[in-house]
Amino acid sequence: MENINEKLNEVKEHIKNVTYLIHAESLIHWDMQTGIPSKAIDGRIEVVGYLYSECIKLMTSSKIGEWIEYFSDKMDKLSFKDKKIIENLKRNYDELIKIPPERNKEYQMLCSTSEAFWKQAKANNDYEGFKPYLAKIIEFNKEFAEYIGYEGNIYNKCLDDYERGLTVDRVDKVFKELRDGIVELLEKIKASKVSIDESFFKKQFPTKDQDEFGKFVLEKLGYDFEAGRLDTTVHPFTTNFGNKDVRITTNYDEHDFRSAFFSNIHEGGHGIYEQNSADDLEYTGVSGGTSMGVHESQSRYYENILGRSKEFWSYFYPEAQKRFPQFEGVNLEDFYKAINKVEPSLIRTEADELTYSIHIIIRYELERAFMNNEITVEELPAAWNEKYKDYLGVEPKNDSEGILQDTHWGAGLIGYFPSYALGNVYGAQFLNKMRQDIPTYDEEVKNGNFAVIKDWLRENIHQFGSLYTPSELIVKVTGEELNPKYFLEYLNKKYGEIYEI
Amino acid sequence: MENINEKLNEVKEHIKNVTYLIHAESLIHWDMQTGIPSKAIDGRIEVVGYLYSECIKLMTSSKIGEWIEYFSDKMDKLSFKDKKIIENLKRNYDELIKIPPERNKEYQMLCSTSEAFWKQAKANNDYEGFKPYLAKIIEFNKEFAEYIGYEGNIYNKCLDDYERGLTVDRVDKVFKELRDGIVELLEKIKASKVSIDESFFKKQFPTKDQDEFGKFVLEKLGYDFEAGRLDTTVHPFTTNFGNKDVRITTNYDEHDFRSAFFSNIHEGGHGIYEQNSADDLEYTGVSGGTSMGVHESQSRYYENILGRSKEFWSYFYPEAQKRFPQFEGVNLEDFYKAINKVEPSLIRTEADELTYSIHIIIRYELERAFMNNEITVEELPAAWNEKYKDYLGVEPKNDSEGILQDTHWGAGLIGYFPSYALGNVYGAQFLNKMRQDIPTYDEEVKNGNFAVIKDWLRENIHQFGSLYTPSELIVKVTGEELNPKYFLEYLNKKYGEIYEI
Repeated sequence: MENINEKLNEVKEHIKNVTYLIHAESLIHWDMQTGIPSKAIDGRIEVVGYLYSECIKLMTSSKIGEWIEYFSDKMDKLSFKDKKIIENLKRNYDELIKIPPERNKEYQMLCSTSEAFWKQAKANNDYEGFKPYLAKIIEFNKEFAEYIGYEGNIYNKCLDDYERGLTVDRVDKVFKELRDGIVELLEKIKASKVSIDESFFKKQFPTKDQDEFGKFVLEKLGYDFEAGRLDTTVHPFTTNFGNKDVRITTNYDEHDFRSAFFSNIHEGGHGIYEQNSADDLEYTGVSGGTSMGVHESQSRYYENILGRSKEFWSYFYPEAQKRFPQFEGVNLEDFYKAINKVEPSLIRTEADELTYSIHIIIRYELERAFMNNEITVEELPAAWNEKYKDYLGVEPKNDSEGILQDTHWGAGLIGYFPSYALGNVYGAQFLNKMRQDIPTYDEEVKNGNFAVIKDWLRENIHQFGSLYTPSELIVKVTGEELNPKYFLEYLNKKYGEIYEI
Repeated sequence: MENINEKLNEVKEHIKNVTYLIHAESLIHWDMQTGIPSKAIDGRIEVVGYLYSECIKLMTSSKIGEWIEYFSDKMDKLSFKDKKIIENLKRNYDELIKIPPERNKEYQMLCSTSEAFWKQAKANNDYEGFKPYLAKIIEFNKEFAEYIGYEGNIYNKCLDDYERGLTVDRVDKVFKELRDGIVELLEKIKASKVSIDESFFKKQFPTKDQDEFGKFVLEKLGYDFEAGRLDTTVHPFTTNFGNKDVRITTNYDEHDFRSAFFSNIHEGGHGIYEQNSADDLEYTGVSGGTSMGVHESQSRYYENILGRSKEFWSYFYPEAQKRFPQFEGVNLEDFYKAINKVEPSLIRTEADELTYSIHIIIRYELERAFMNNEITVEELPAAWNEKYKDYLGVEPKNDSEGILQDTHWGAGLIGYFPSYALGNVYGAQFLNKMRQDIPTYDEEVKNGNFAVIKDWLRENIHQFGSLYTPSELIVKVTGEELNPKYFLEYLNKKYGEIYEI
């Protein structure tokens, strides 16, 4: 037993060093998004490339091979946590040793360059300029899938990167149910006579006031500013270096109150998840969110299920009215309806809760297509626009509000998008259980007792970091497998009331 | 020859990797000063410690020993630049292999912790809390000096760290001449009947207006915001990761216009020096400022010689008056006198140009004393206060405005302070030469042609990075060794006019 513990300590020391490098890299990435001087970008990409390749060296070190071998017949002697640490180490090792380190480093550097270029491309509506980057990123993803191997569709590999075990077959099934349910509801809403005024959101909302109110709400929800900070970037995101430094970003639109507000609490949901990962998982490789889908379940829970509920605003609206004279004469009911107005639109991050998943389905279909060589990068913008027209009845005027709107592909995140819609599905299923466990749920929200919610999420989800796979976690928490019915029920109830259908 | 070039490329590739690690570390340090969430500090110190020890591993790798051996009889075959690269590599290697890596890492981590703690200590007037950190830092400096070795006084080692070849004997001599000259002039000023009003500087100056004006002036002077940025910190500083990312910080006082303004152009001077180090020196180990003394000559030139000159303000004052109604009714002459008012005071960074060097001499004497075991950390605050009383006739109310005012000792920078006063001496000697080379100097400043100055500095000083030692550089530029007479002449002329003596 003593020998096992010694070995374990060696392993943990090694993983700590890997984590140090990852933290350094992540800080550089954060800096590249928030404030790097433009002339410094090329040099910084070199630095990230170096750190990344050092990190890969550690993660594929022959020592790890030996440790895996050593522990292979001793797994039942390990604690649950230690077993997970070794399993995670092995999974990463087995994948990484299949990829030529040089190619991996090249890909990381490409992603950094491409992410930086995307910002300009979006600003200048320059898909032509962005295209070669995207093409290379897609090719790398195909190449890596071949190195590592996959079952069935090549795109399964991409899905698995963000949601372990997820397959095209499964997503097709869930998304079909989702799409049918949403489209049916959308048709009813279109036929509804209820008309919702949202013009007051388009008044002038000074950045400073939005920023202060955003921080006020984030603190109330339990986002810890002593373990985080809020900055401004083109595309809002959350990044973290352990659970004590979880940074979120936002993008203020002075002519729409909703844009930054809901983005703030969305990122805040990611942030709260990471901040509440247990301390004893830090530096072990199994700390922090277990998958992007579960992550999105937390961010989209805070943004929508909680943040667009009437109870939430019955607590916050008086304060909002105090701070924003722009809401004078708008009562809570009208405000509530306005933040839930359904209107097919072009920009995913600003989509209403109902049509949002359609934006995701469009991206999913395009990713699946380009990973399977069914569409070229030349054809993508037109395909994008056509799907928006077909599914949502809207058409981008240009690529900036079309295919260039999201940072994901430019940053190399292929297979990530589906997690947003899965997040909705997870989130509603968690909500169902939370309501059972906290019968006073609505009252707590109305009274601003958000600690009750944060505590439930920490106890049931956050503290476990990545100890459980998403599919294990959903069963552990709710007692059943992922089931879209809760989300559809939730949507039907909510929008049924709002649109009187 | 081919073999030499191959080896050189190997060496340069290695130095590049070292530089990458240093850039990553420096960014983390910058982040720790500007915006890290408080709970993240301990974890980040671990990261820095890891990167630092990896860096030391590279800098003491046995490969370097072999390269040094290889090049030892081929130095005359190398270009001037390549020779300097190898010499620099060797100097660092020879020092580092004498220090046990573990002790070095511990020291770096101590400095990070201590620097972070100093911020709180200053805010809470807590010298007692800070004392153990300072004691450890002093002990480490003595220990390291013994490892590496030194001639004569142990404090020579500290001086050498920031100004190669500098000794206590030399500093004693220069500082004596300086002190005598300054004290003589100060006595005359005290006897002068000229009285200067500076009350208008104490009006309310909103941070935003100061920030905008500061950036406006920095741009005019040639600080490149595409290769830099300006942030807010407790103690202003400059840090850089190559010549394309040179960041400066400031600290706004809404009740004193001068505080941030002169600090901005001081740091801007450091920044311009780093930004104009030649591109082909990047990642070679010999890029960037050659010594802290020469660095301070640049920052203090911009802050004082240029920034407190009448010609400078005859260009900028109309703009300042446009932006700041607080200056209404104050003419240029009165403004000029007010920014040059001599008044012995407590805070170094806010001292006038004349008494500033006395602040440095006090610190120098204390450093020399504690490095030679002539004073304990317990005795330091009283000794500090006494020297201020003796030399300047002022006495700190508490340690926050006394011994805790500077970040340097907390950050492990012992031997650094003298460079500020040496900077004054270098700066005036450079000015003398600049005036010979640019006979229209005063006119250029009056007309805001600051590019002429920046170009002269780049051509004569900045571009060379660390290719020349400070003593080589001063001779190369001005044709003679460092000579305090230029600075004393400059002071006597300037203050003679202002105080009519």
